[in-house]
Amino acid sequence: MITWNTLTSAQQKDALTRPVMALAGSVKSKVSEIINAVEQRGDEAVLELTRQFDCNTLKTLPLSSRQLTELASQVNDVTRQAIEAAYANIKRFHIAQQQPAVVVETRPGVICEQHSDAIESVGLYIPGGSAPLPSTVLMLGVPAQVAGCKTRILCTPPNVNGTIAPEIAYAASLCGIQKVFLCGGAQAIAAMALGTQTITKVDKIYGPGNRFVTEAKQQVSQRNDGAAIDMPAGPSEVLVIADASANAQFVAADLLSQAEHGEDSQAILVCSSKEVIEQTQRAVESQLQVLSRQSTASVAMKNARYILTQSVDESVLVSNQYAPEHLIVQTEDARALLPAIKNAGSVFLGAWSPESAGDYASGTNHVLPTYGFARTYSSLGLSDFVRRYTVQEITQQGLQEIGQTICVLAEAEGLDAHKRAVSIRLQALEEASK
Amino acid sequence: MITWNTLTSAQQKDALTRPVMALAGSVKSKVSEIINAVEQRGDEAVLELTRQFDCNTLKTLPLSSRQLTELASQVNDVTRQAIEAAYANIKRFHIAQQQPAVVVETRPGVICEQHSDAIESVGLYIPGGSAPLPSTVLMLGVPAQVAGCKTRILCTPPNVNGTIAPEIAYAASLCGIQKVFLCGGAQAIAAMALGTQTITKVDKIYGPGNRFVTEAKQQVSQRNDGAAIDMPAGPSEVLVIADASANAQFVAADLLSQAEHGEDSQAILVCSSKEVIEQTQRAVESQLQVLSRQSTASVAMKNARYILTQSVDESVLVSNQYAPEHLIVQTEDARALLPAIKNAGSVFLGAWSPESAGDYASGTNHVLPTYGFARTYSSLGLSDFVRRYTVQEITQQGLQEIGQTICVLAEAEGLDAHKRAVSIRLQALEEASK
Repeated sequence: MITWNTLTSAQQKDALTRPVMALAGSVKSKVSEIINAVEQRGDEAVLELTRQFDCNTLKTLPLSSRQLTELASQVNDVTRQAIEAAYANIKRFHIAQQQPAVVVETRPGVICEQHSDAIESVGLYIPGGSAPLPSTVLMLGVPAQVAGCKTRILCTPPNVNGTIAPEIAYAASLCGIQKVFLCGGAQAIAAMALGTQTITKVDKIYGPGNRFVTEAKQQVSQRNDGAAIDMPAGPSEVLVIADASANAQFVAADLLSQAEHGEDSQAILVCSSKEVIEQTQRAVESQLQVLSRQSTASVAMKNARYILTQSVDESVLVSNQYAPEHLIVQTEDARALLPAIKNAGSVFLGAWSPESAGDYASGTNHVLPTYGFARTYSSLGLSDFVRRYTVQEITQQGLQEIGQTICVLAEAEGLDAHKRAVSIRLQALEEASK
Repeated sequence: MITWNTLTSAQQKDALTRPVMALAGSVKSKVSEIINAVEQRGDEAVLELTRQFDCNTLKTLPLSSRQLTELASQVNDVTRQAIEAAYANIKRFHIAQQQPAVVVETRPGVICEQHSDAIESVGLYIPGGSAPLPSTVLMLGVPAQVAGCKTRILCTPPNVNGTIAPEIAYAASLCGIQKVFLCGGAQAIAAMALGTQTITKVDKIYGPGNRFVTEAKQQVSQRNDGAAIDMPAGPSEVLVIADASANAQFVAADLLSQAEHGEDSQAILVCSSKEVIEQTQRAVESQLQVLSRQSTASVAMKNARYILTQSVDESVLVSNQYAPEHLIVQTEDARALLPAIKNAGSVFLGAWSPESAGDYASGTNHVLPTYGFARTYSSLGLSDFVRRYTVQEITQQGLQEIGQTICVLAEAEGLDAHKRAVSIRLQALEEASK
């Protein structure tokens, strides 16, 4: 337990410092080799790597739409209903994010507008691993569908049998994904960014992944012929603000639900009650015993931090400094703190709003900025699937209204032709009026 | 003149290919050296480089607020009024972009919200060069001010006398810039991204610059301890769609106003009338003669392309494929084409809407995605100065409503602790109701 106000500001900074994300140079060069291979040999390289890493008998990358339908139909009723319920809530929340066009007449006859339009083609990446991630399919697939992105493809590594989980297939079909390709890792990212014979080149790539995927996304986003990406990635993290009114069992359960994600997950409790911290520590110990991912969670919890503050307000300042991906607030009047809260990716207010709700089913997106990126990056939303562009339409009167301003500024900046593009028009108007 | 429909699709692609932005390896390594120097030696390194490149007698990096006020007061009345008029229009348009919070009750008792909040500290970069760029100060400073970014600093290289243009100072003071630092190039970007003794470390950096600045922005944005950046950069470009009704003199003036930006500027006319193309070519020749930046513009115009199409609709398809930074539409009913127009950063409708209007004074932002990035990146706007985050507040009833969905999905994904964070709460509710 760390008592915040006994620390120097350097020690405070230390207490909130995330472990360095040191990427082995070998990962960078391996990824760059894979990107080169995919660029040069296309499908052949992707298939080769997929056989090597995922399924050595795989014949072809695309999952046919018959296979997709067949797989989707295998989902059991209970899971199907849960996927549908989550899909409906996520869709509702992302539809609500649609923005009307902005239209302003800044001066008489000078109409300025801001519109948004779907990014034409998007590629969604769903990692493989020990269990399928249908929730991530929904978090990426729903906003792409609501935005109206014309081309929506999905890459996910096949299992050893050369297929994917029915849950993934069902979620993908709900989101109207047009093509599913059986590949993962850096090779999948390279294929979507550069295109191959069968995999469509897309404009932007979304989704989580291991360090090879993350590095591949960084590398393709730096290429002019590559693809944009959703946001930089780091280990998942939660910060819980609690006070004396908090239920320590709930707080412990929330910290552990973060910790089970991975050994590098960060869980931080910032609490103005010493008793609640101690109760939480005991509750963590006892709840850990029954978890299926106990070994992962206990490694992560070794790095958990318990910070004692003097007040809830001080707790908020600690959180603002850390800039957590997830912020859970279990205090007496959680909503009252909202105006003071800065730099959090997603905020969960009150005792009945566990992070799992946002991870799966409430409607908010679970793709969030980690590693302090919440200071500048946004929670994934509809606007990440659209491009905003401006439009202006100026009438003759409008140009007369602002023409002088343009000419003076263009002259101040030494841009003669800019000035002439206006003066030639003003002259034409003058001549016409004679 | 290129006749579009006589080209194969490979030739069409070729005709719209931008020159490769080949960055000499020496730029990359030079920039990385500068960033290291600033990281290690702070102000000392920045001052050293500024003396070397900009003003060898410079004593200190910050411009005092007295100096700023003094400089600002030197602007002549005509220019002051023009800066004020542009400021007012830009402000109006960016205020209109403010978004209300999104609040949706996705299920009874499940409240999902999306809010936005200003990015706390921003750094604006204004390049030096032969003439001052007050318009760019406004384009970056106004949205930062409207968003309410708490810390707003500006870096710009000093002239040989160790000062800056009064126009820059006046625009900066209108935008409420708190600190101006006399430095430019990669060293200014490094200083804002990493912080020095006198230059504040900022969360996000905005603004145009030469290849050293651009490369420095890329490099700091890839560092976990660096800063986010506005968007990738490339040479400026315009595409004009015209038909037989277009005024060739206006079209020529618009192409030239792009061409005077730099020798690598791209100007493309896509026109369904052979006559208008020929008239425009002649008008370009004659207008070039009187331009002050004739030598720059004529180099750029050597790479200009004149593409003849069979219809306005075909012209729109060409533009969509190119994804221009600026798109000027001089056709009979320009607005009617808007729904079909994709992938343009900013669209100028009709004969009386020259690009210069948006560059300076109409209200729209002139920081726009170039080099085809308009496919995924947006025109700079208020939302680039805020972060969106989500909030959820779930009632007891709400959790009972979606609890089962969360538990089923968490189980499908093998995330036991996620499930327990809900079930432990549902159990508590059940016990309480007994």
